[in-house]
Amino acid sequence: MTTIEDHATDVDDRDPLFARIPRRDFMKAGAAVGAVGSLAGCTGLLSDDGQVSAADADASVPPGEHDDYYAFLSGGHSGEIRVYGIPSMRQLIRIPVFGRESARGYGYDDRSSQMLEDAGGYSWGDAHHPRVSQTDNDYDGRWAFVNDKANGRMARIDLKYFETDAIVDVPNQQGTHGACCMLPDTKYVFGVGEFRVPMPNDGRDLDDPDSYTSTIAAIDPETMDVEWEVLVDGNMDNGDGGKEGRWFFATGYNSENGVTESEMSSSETDWVKAFDVPAIEEAVEAGEYEEVGGVPLVDGTRDSSLNGGDRPIVRYIDVAKSPHGVSVTPDGQYAIASGKLDPTCAVIDIEALAETDDPNEAIVGRPSLGMGPLHTAYDGRGHAYTTLFIDSQVVKWDIEAAVEAEAESEDPVVEKIDVHYNPGHLIAAESYTADPQGDWLVALNKLSKDRFLNVGPMKPENDQLIYIGDDDAGMELVKDTPAYAEPHDASIVSADKIQPADIYDPEDYDEEFVDHGDSDIVREDGRVHVKMYSQRNKFGFQDVTVQEGDEVTFTVTNIETTPDLLHSLAIPEHDVNIKLAPQETREVTFTADEPGVYWMYCAFFCSALHLEMRSRLLVEPAE
Amino acid sequence: MTTIEDHATDVDDRDPLFARIPRRDFMKAGAAVGAVGSLAGCTGLLSDDGQVSAADADASVPPGEHDDYYAFLSGGHSGEIRVYGIPSMRQLIRIPVFGRESARGYGYDDRSSQMLEDAGGYSWGDAHHPRVSQTDNDYDGRWAFVNDKANGRMARIDLKYFETDAIVDVPNQQGTHGACCMLPDTKYVFGVGEFRVPMPNDGRDLDDPDSYTSTIAAIDPETMDVEWEVLVDGNMDNGDGGKEGRWFFATGYNSENGVTESEMSSSETDWVKAFDVPAIEEAVEAGEYEEVGGVPLVDGTRDSSLNGGDRPIVRYIDVAKSPHGVSVTPDGQYAIASGKLDPTCAVIDIEALAETDDPNEAIVGRPSLGMGPLHTAYDGRGHAYTTLFIDSQVVKWDIEAAVEAEAESEDPVVEKIDVHYNPGHLIAAESYTADPQGDWLVALNKLSKDRFLNVGPMKPENDQLIYIGDDDAGMELVKDTPAYAEPHDASIVSADKIQPADIYDPEDYDEEFVDHGDSDIVREDGRVHVKMYSQRNKFGFQDVTVQEGDEVTFTVTNIETTPDLLHSLAIPEHDVNIKLAPQETREVTFTADEPGVYWMYCAFFCSALHLEMRSRLLVEPAE
Repeated sequence: MTTIEDHATDVDDRDPLFARIPRRDFMKAGAAVGAVGSLAGCTGLLSDDGQVSAADADASVPPGEHDDYYAFLSGGHSGEIRVYGIPSMRQLIRIPVFGRESARGYGYDDRSSQMLEDAGGYSWGDAHHPRVSQTDNDYDGRWAFVNDKANGRMARIDLKYFETDAIVDVPNQQGTHGACCMLPDTKYVFGVGEFRVPMPNDGRDLDDPDSYTSTIAAIDPETMDVEWEVLVDGNMDNGDGGKEGRWFFATGYNSENGVTESEMSSSETDWVKAFDVPAIEEAVEAGEYEEVGGVPLVDGTRDSSLNGGDRPIVRYIDVAKSPHGVSVTPDGQYAIASGKLDPTCAVIDIEALAETDDPNEAIVGRPSLGMGPLHTAYDGRGHAYTTLFIDSQVVKWDIEAAVEAEAESEDPVVEKIDVHYNPGHLIAAESYTADPQGDWLVALNKLSKDRFLNVGPMKPENDQLIYIGDDDAGMELVKDTPAYAEPHDASIVSADKIQPADIYDPEDYDEEFVDHGDSDIVREDGRVHVKMYSQRNKFGFQDVTVQEGDEVTFTVTNIETTPDLLHSLAIPEHDVNIKLAPQETREVTFTADEPGVYWMYCAFFCSALHLEMRSRLLVEPAE
Repeated sequence: MTTIEDHATDVDDRDPLFARIPRRDFMKAGAAVGAVGSLAGCTGLLSDDGQVSAADADASVPPGEHDDYYAFLSGGHSGEIRVYGIPSMRQLIRIPVFGRESARGYGYDDRSSQMLEDAGGYSWGDAHHPRVSQTDNDYDGRWAFVNDKANGRMARIDLKYFETDAIVDVPNQQGTHGACCMLPDTKYVFGVGEFRVPMPNDGRDLDDPDSYTSTIAAIDPETMDVEWEVLVDGNMDNGDGGKEGRWFFATGYNSENGVTESEMSSSETDWVKAFDVPAIEEAVEAGEYEEVGGVPLVDGTRDSSLNGGDRPIVRYIDVAKSPHGVSVTPDGQYAIASGKLDPTCAVIDIEALAETDDPNEAIVGRPSLGMGPLHTAYDGRGHAYTTLFIDSQVVKWDIEAAVEAEAESEDPVVEKIDVHYNPGHLIAAESYTADPQGDWLVALNKLSKDRFLNVGPMKPENDQLIYIGDDDAGMELVKDTPAYAEPHDASIVSADKIQPADIYDPEDYDEEFVDHGDSDIVREDGRVHVKMYSQRNKFGFQDVTVQEGDEVTFTVTNIETTPDLLHSLAIPEHDVNIKLAPQETREVTFTADEPGVYWMYCAFFCSALHLEMRSRLLVEPAE
């Protein structure tokens, strides 16, 4: 086991953080001191002078004060992303991703409608893993990415405007489960394919499971093009990137290539797959791929010649049956895969992986943690926090002790805390970076049972806030937060690392900005193009007259420059509502197929004369 | 002015509440004592012995404890209802109403899809006013209702299951703005029509605003049939029912019947309309109506003969320009309409209204409150709380003092508190009943500006929790709560008055319950009907094979009996996801138009073997 002195030195070297500003840093200081104290808790050697107790954890955010962190939570089959403030656990905003959302006009204006249409035209998706782009292993505030497990897609959210700006339909994947950045600089976003299906899935090989395949896809974060894919054996689910630009890890189940649960459960082991990305890139460069579905597909199955040489492109590491989560430690030393059906986690030494011929030798620890270990997060002080789905607990354990325990059978478990109930993912502040903050952890519990007022058979989930900044006092459950179905995973980012815009920059979109002087109505061959501004408390035209059957396009600009003064163009009985934030222009096209008077109005409460902000759409009968 | 002794006696008579249970009642006791104290604050005559200070207001709800109240907030143009817990301000659940929502499968299974289709087929609505059914002027826990301003509809939410179970497309209304129960026993739900349009709106009278009309609609809460409508002059917006089964009030603007803002603003006054419901029922009974759009339409315009006699069916009360909200005091004595563009509220004496020939004589108070008064709530201790949109404040005022002030010019204003920013509606606990709880008030502020971490140009609104239980210490701002666009109004109901079910009762729906022995696949003429159960962790069929082009119906039952164990049937690339709560059966029908293998799966994380809960849909090529 490493010595106490090693740890104490590590902490001090890692972050000289004992003289900073308000709440976050007060607590971070507490956390760092706590790190030393925790070892005291383990060993009894150190005094706990200077400890900040968990009872001091200030999770209150009084009216008018800001949170310390943004948390990006996936919305599961609601198809959206939700942004919480941490530690208040307040939901700051929703970001619709895979489905239309009317208050935001997402999927209503022509641009966002076309994006959803081009990405397959589905009305929903199953968003699991929101990951935020990094540069040099730290959040850079540019994008968040999230997968669609239901339709094999990956979406990008622009963090300047907190809106979805790209969705790619990933070829050759039916269920894109994991989503994860290639680190340190987000060279790729990886989509981890779960469902094995025939390739192409066009009716061939329907009942020939041996011919089914799944892939991982490397997506360029700038263009959202799929650069290449790698074919593998077995299903995959979660993934995480190493910190050093070489390895990407994915867990998987069903190494049996079965199709029934009993077939999928017959083997005693499954794999963690370690993708050697530079080796894959070399293979692509060398033309060692087949083009399938429009992308280079590299064969990374066990029998592939690309896995036969000195530097296999995919290393298959045997772990206990059906590992679920995998995450790389902040220092980049280990990939830790959770056992799910097995009470252990597998600690994979990443450096050893590169040096050994037998990848199984890279497993340097198998701590026994409890029932149903699913996912692991980090505090940057050498601890791992793993959800125990079946035990309904979070277990805190010492990573180095777990490595040592292989020989010494020492129990690396530091502490367990009950959560309510059945946690899936958990996330600690900046856990996916090289420098976790070590203060807050959120457990995403799938069931809430009786924790909240009864709201009928569809109960909320329960996102619980746990203070982990005081190793001496231990983990402290601070808040229960009901969550609409179905958050799967999250990323927590320090507030100062994201700098969203307050108003739109017209340079950032293609639509024509319509100022006061630009109002216009152009009619041509059954098409009407209306250009108008919106401003408290009117639209550029009081009346717009069209003919029954006309195809009508409205280009509307909100010419306000005051932040938070939104307008919309809502048209009754035409299913139209486009959102217009300050300086934003959107277009909407529809057919005016029913004669009559329709009061177009602004659906945002924009001024005292909000109700009066409306204009008439007059649709004249065709005859 | 009433005497101090009168008030003290009123409080004691109204509710002998000085020896009850935990938080709510502790605070209610404080509130009641505070009522006496408040007068002390006004007059200096009473001591403040026994006061519970606002600082004692316990808005924390520790992990595992329940809230005291359900709050039902509308979601504006998101088209949904949100349920908060009060005082935690946590969002407990969303209830999709006017648009599809995939996590809940709402608008995905055949039953809910058909309901949305029958109600016009729109993908969104503009939900403003959630009102909860009452019996004997108290919440009965049966239903909530909410309007759709965008498409002239009214929806009902079943509070056994917290789900939308009926939507009616209101004839002759383009924008149904107000929604409100006829009290004391919810005989009707009123839909208040805002937009004036030709009737019928089929292309006739396009640019003849004098012929435009709007109506209120009386909807039967059991059948959701529109029983009758009343034609009126001018636009209408908000409404509220008297407590006694006779009057219904609606505010309105545009008594000018104009179509531009300047036309709508030319008059100095507009109306509060008082509908004499039994008189209207008599007219309907007597056949004094025209049938339009399938419903009896009674003429309630000013020139109508039904308004010429001794008992006019609609009384037009002149108030300052563009009144906005109207609400009836808990004792049923007054209807208070807020001035919006005028700094006053109009206090209408309801008893006087019945006794006078000139309805304007029923106005017994016009307190000057501040800029932009919009809506008023009550604490049951004689105070009104009015939002001041332009001043960004809530003003607390004494109702009786305002009535007296007509003669004495005494200032009825007790206190103002800043809110952040620009409040629309506000709601106090059970304010719409005869017995408000007097502890919590929520101000629904339209702008949040810089109150939260920046999330881009579309900022959240801000629902602020204010403690009003201590008249002596004054109003206390307790919490800021970011809200996704765009809550308009709310109702707050004591937790014990709603008793939702934990699991479904199959007697409550028509679909066939599919138990273990009932699995079946029936094929006939290009139609395939699959009946299967779902249970941790499998579906009734491992494989389902159909032919390309088949119309496929799945009837699926979740046979679990354990609360909170939900399943779903998600079908990749088929845009299918139906939610199945315990004991719930749903059906979904789609065309299998693409050959291939599709992994149907459960999108709720239902067990440790959740990932393995999936079956194959095999679509064989047609040839």
